[in-house]
Amino acid sequence: MSSGKLIGVGVGPGDPELMTLKATRALADADVIAHFAKAGRASHSRAIAARYLRAGVAELPLLYPVTTELPKCSDGYRDAIRDFFDDAAAKIGAELDAGRIVAVICEGDPLFYGSYMHLHARLAPRYATEIVAGVTGMSGCWSAAGMPIAQGDDVFTVLPATLPEAELARRLADADAAVIMKVGRHLPKLRRALDRSGRLARAIYIENGTMADALTVPLTAKRDDDAPYFAVVLVPGWERRP
Amino acid sequence: MSSGKLIGVGVGPGDPELMTLKATRALADADVIAHFAKAGRASHSRAIAARYLRAGVAELPLLYPVTTELPKCSDGYRDAIRDFFDDAAAKIGAELDAGRIVAVICEGDPLFYGSYMHLHARLAPRYATEIVAGVTGMSGCWSAAGMPIAQGDDVFTVLPATLPEAELARRLADADAAVIMKVGRHLPKLRRALDRSGRLARAIYIENGTMADALTVPLTAKRDDDAPYFAVVLVPGWERRP
Repeated sequence: MSSGKLIGVGVGPGDPELMTLKATRALADADVIAHFAKAGRASHSRAIAARYLRAGVAELPLLYPVTTELPKCSDGYRDAIRDFFDDAAAKIGAELDAGRIVAVICEGDPLFYGSYMHLHARLAPRYATEIVAGVTGMSGCWSAAGMPIAQGDDVFTVLPATLPEAELARRLADADAAVIMKVGRHLPKLRRALDRSGRLARAIYIENGTMADALTVPLTAKRDDDAPYFAVVLVPGWERRP
Repeated sequence: MSSGKLIGVGVGPGDPELMTLKATRALADADVIAHFAKAGRASHSRAIAARYLRAGVAELPLLYPVTTELPKCSDGYRDAIRDFFDDAAAKIGAELDAGRIVAVICEGDPLFYGSYMHLHARLAPRYATEIVAGVTGMSGCWSAAGMPIAQGDDVFTVLPATLPEAELARRLADADAAVIMKVGRHLPKLRRALDRSGRLARAIYIENGTMADALTVPLTAKRDDDAPYFAVVLVPGWERRP
């Protein structure tokens, strides 16, 4: 192994104050800061961490070639995204071979639904790695809403809104508490699934989680018109609260 | 409302460096620091946060009258624990009525399976409250293990090991990724459920999460003899990794 090290640094759900002490120190110590963004857009994770980057530190932007333009099940999407991660891993590997510490900054927690995992899977077999756990986006959401999510022996589940309606309804009915991610254009279907599973009345809709422009409303007060891809719906558990 | 404020402060999974900047500032600003512990034992959350408490700050220890001595389904347990939370909320309410800021420090995240939720439910209707999200114990565990847990459209679930074996097996088979909590004396039953659901080979056993004496081993290398109550088992998802 080279003396280089790869660090996946969780920077939390959006509020820079929800970064950990360990994350700020990892950013101060890194030789290279890598961050993901859609081509032509600013990186969200970089915006969160900006005030903790050393002035003039080397940066390695990793720009997704596609995000939602191609269907995820298509060969075109799979090939483009695999090539992108292969290329990103090669660029980071070159830095590690030169003995540098590369911090990849990640929204939320690096190993919980994060793009960093694709780099980790490619590089961890060959290089020293470290993970700095972060506050997840969903923790940021239920905290901003002041909404206890799960307690005691509750079964808690995380579901993508991309699932078919009947499967969403079945899984919602089978869990005490749930978080549904990637809501976007799936909101009308998700609303029907929540209704079928008896969970609609307690569902909370959240847009822009811990950002300054966060929107938190009962789902019954939100129309089906324009939910962003990263909106989430919370179904709080803990029904037997004293 | 009084000018007092109740703040639920997540201090993360154990490593003090995994506290957020917001948590350290909340502790510095609080008039009173409240923390849970079993009677006669030191508070885990206080140990994590100790270096960030102001010298001489007022402390309010909240000491559980029972933890595992009585079965959770018994009337005795329910009554004792309800009286305990009622009394703790009354003590904190008196501080809030006097206009003080009370920070309740919580391992992990305050609203995710935390005792703080019992105080929040009692006090939030009458007082200003704020939640400082924290890194969960489970994030600390998979990060320390360097183990990607869930990706893409994975269904992720959190299960208490207290569930019956058949229900554990059914739910494990129905999820892409899982975290099983409260393992303790349920380990032999959980192992059988993992085997029945085809998840045993990829199950990771973790004791003492992000502590210095953490133990992380494949579950197949761990005997059924002496798992602590707070041990967890991870079942990583992301089976279609590129």
